[in-house]
Amino acid sequence: MTKVIEPRTLAGFRDFLPEQMAIRKKVLEILTAVFEKYGFSPMENPTLEYQDILLGKSGTEAEKLMYLFKDPGGRDVGMRYELTISTARVLAQYPALPKPFKRYQIQPVWRADKPQKGRYREITQCDIDTFGSESPLADAEIIAIIYEGLKALGFKKFVIDINSRRVLLRLMTTANIPEDKQVSVLQSIDKLDKKSEAEVQAELNSRGITDTQIEKLFNLVKTAKPDDYLQKVLDTLPKLGIPDEFYKFNGYIVRGLTYYTGPIFETKVEEPKIGSVTGGGRYDRLIGKFIGQDIAATGTSFGIDRICDVITELNLWPDVPKTPTKVLVTVFSPELLKKSLDITTKIREGNTNTEIYLDPEARLDKQLKYADAKGIPYAVIIGPDEAEKNLVTLKDLRNKTQTTITPEEAVRKIREED
Amino acid sequence: MTKVIEPRTLAGFRDFLPEQMAIRKKVLEILTAVFEKYGFSPMENPTLEYQDILLGKSGTEAEKLMYLFKDPGGRDVGMRYELTISTARVLAQYPALPKPFKRYQIQPVWRADKPQKGRYREITQCDIDTFGSESPLADAEIIAIIYEGLKALGFKKFVIDINSRRVLLRLMTTANIPEDKQVSVLQSIDKLDKKSEAEVQAELNSRGITDTQIEKLFNLVKTAKPDDYLQKVLDTLPKLGIPDEFYKFNGYIVRGLTYYTGPIFETKVEEPKIGSVTGGGRYDRLIGKFIGQDIAATGTSFGIDRICDVITELNLWPDVPKTPTKVLVTVFSPELLKKSLDITTKIREGNTNTEIYLDPEARLDKQLKYADAKGIPYAVIIGPDEAEKNLVTLKDLRNKTQTTITPEEAVRKIREED
Repeated sequence: MTKVIEPRTLAGFRDFLPEQMAIRKKVLEILTAVFEKYGFSPMENPTLEYQDILLGKSGTEAEKLMYLFKDPGGRDVGMRYELTISTARVLAQYPALPKPFKRYQIQPVWRADKPQKGRYREITQCDIDTFGSESPLADAEIIAIIYEGLKALGFKKFVIDINSRRVLLRLMTTANIPEDKQVSVLQSIDKLDKKSEAEVQAELNSRGITDTQIEKLFNLVKTAKPDDYLQKVLDTLPKLGIPDEFYKFNGYIVRGLTYYTGPIFETKVEEPKIGSVTGGGRYDRLIGKFIGQDIAATGTSFGIDRICDVITELNLWPDVPKTPTKVLVTVFSPELLKKSLDITTKIREGNTNTEIYLDPEARLDKQLKYADAKGIPYAVIIGPDEAEKNLVTLKDLRNKTQTTITPEEAVRKIREED
Repeated sequence: MTKVIEPRTLAGFRDFLPEQMAIRKKVLEILTAVFEKYGFSPMENPTLEYQDILLGKSGTEAEKLMYLFKDPGGRDVGMRYELTISTARVLAQYPALPKPFKRYQIQPVWRADKPQKGRYREITQCDIDTFGSESPLADAEIIAIIYEGLKALGFKKFVIDINSRRVLLRLMTTANIPEDKQVSVLQSIDKLDKKSEAEVQAELNSRGITDTQIEKLFNLVKTAKPDDYLQKVLDTLPKLGIPDEFYKFNGYIVRGLTYYTGPIFETKVEEPKIGSVTGGGRYDRLIGKFIGQDIAATGTSFGIDRICDVITELNLWPDVPKTPTKVLVTVFSPELLKKSLDITTKIREGNTNTEIYLDPEARLDKQLKYADAKGIPYAVIIGPDEAEKNLVTLKDLRNKTQTTITPEEAVRKIREED
């Protein structure tokens, strides 16, 4: 043995062991099925991009959080910080892509943020976006996918809060907020949902906004109404089959990012208590910053990491098996290995996921403990008694029952449960 | 518009656009189903690891190809170069993982190799390995998965070449090849499959191996036979249902990597002409180098990138749709949008992937061109005539036929084809 290296992962980075993968795979299967049902296609982009592309749109704040470095060839490169930027590059690089371009993309992104519970440096980003459509139908469709996706994940109670960045900016102008302060004022307004008016007022005062302006602004926000465009979006939602109680116009929703130009939407899941799981909106002038020509865009992110974490922590999906394996075929002794191999192959013929215990010398109780530890629901045993009568014992490891039957019956029984 | 950035990808890095994703997704779906059928579970590890972990096992040759850098916190980190090393870390870090630990892992790795046709810097690595079993059954199972995986991909003719590193090393000792030259001699032997004996002889001479040694070695290789362990592996293959013609003992197979300790196997696909697509073997002393305690291991890699490239280039899967979307519901006019939305929702209720054209002002021929460009097989049209009679026109865009029927009939017809 040479020197031993301390086994450890970088802070903010995680291993997904088989048990965790089971939940993740299921979450992604459910969501991608919904995305494809609405005509969105998968796309993937490289992990590394040239730095000028990565830095094109983000401010210096984002730059501090990026993994930027020189590659072995001396090029200035960086790891994907978010997905939209690569998609903007794709739209410029492959102009023949049919528009509207509706893509979903599920890939990690990297942000050297302070790691804390639920906040990682390697983040699974899951985005759906429609590029090249200015139609309110495109926004409504994104909202419909949020509704149907969260429903399909089994969430009972949630609300998609909908507002319009355009409406907000108009209010600001009406309240005489100078243009250079509009973004920071918006960020304070965003807190009206959680903080008292007095607290937000103090914050705004400290930014040089007068009490008169603030009073006007609060009244405007309170009585805000959707504009024509947003009204069209809202009117489409029932036609797409979304029940009333799952969405509402909410004048207080702002969203942090500066680039939104129209409807914005975010979702809080209340049952189970997951909190904020989606955020998005329309951003018609972002792509143009990269490619020199505006392409209308609307979309949303799903907070996959948060969804998976909460499902795991609250054990919301107790029925998702910890392992894909359905049956462990034990091996009683080296002499009886052939019998065990035969039934293994037979069970697999029905496409049932089947393991055979690999060490024919191992004691039976060790083999059954292995099945238990992995969470395999069934075990097949062929001892000398069973072999003589050409039977097998089928054990259900969950309820500790067992039955001795013909191999054909065992195969049928396992398949029926599959 | 601010400055425009030239849209480009780094050499050796690729975008997977929706059309390419369709093939990739199908290849991975097919293979993972086979892996799970044999009781392998998915695992994923972080993209970045501490450098001491990455460099633990690889020589300086590999180091030159690694993406190593300082992260924003000043840590020495690097991008995953291969998958085994992270798995070794996992085995050390989570000792409670049930053994044998059978995992499959499909993630990108990064190697700053000279890019050329079919060789990338971002490579999809697809590994299956069994850790913690010294049983020949474990090796046989890996070979069975290669057979069944390639069959499931629809490949007609291929041979899994099987040899044993232990047999090869014993031959070398018998031929009096000094231990420090055994690896380089093995690498020359590997070429006997492609080069003449004379050429390989010249190469060996240049390494200081005498003609007497070489003659002895060639004779030994020619008449090499499996050892007891490998014979057990070979005897198990028919019991796992692998027909004779798909594997053979081949004394010339060496495999490049130094760390193999037992059976080695690689596969060439001859029909279709894909060439080498898998490589692997037993490596019982690699994990110990990381974790201070040997864990037996055997496994194989699948060359996913090559498989996908060839399927795409030779158009081997013409029936894989370019898009997940099955139907485009066109919108004849803003007034008829509601009708189109209704049938869209109805078709989606059967989980058929359905797009509605997002711009109700667009001309019908533009909408149908969009469907054609994306490769959507069906279009639904509701013009004023259809609307009045409560009918829809269903167009099959592949064979340019169409029929005007009730919405219910259209929904049924589309679902039947699904």
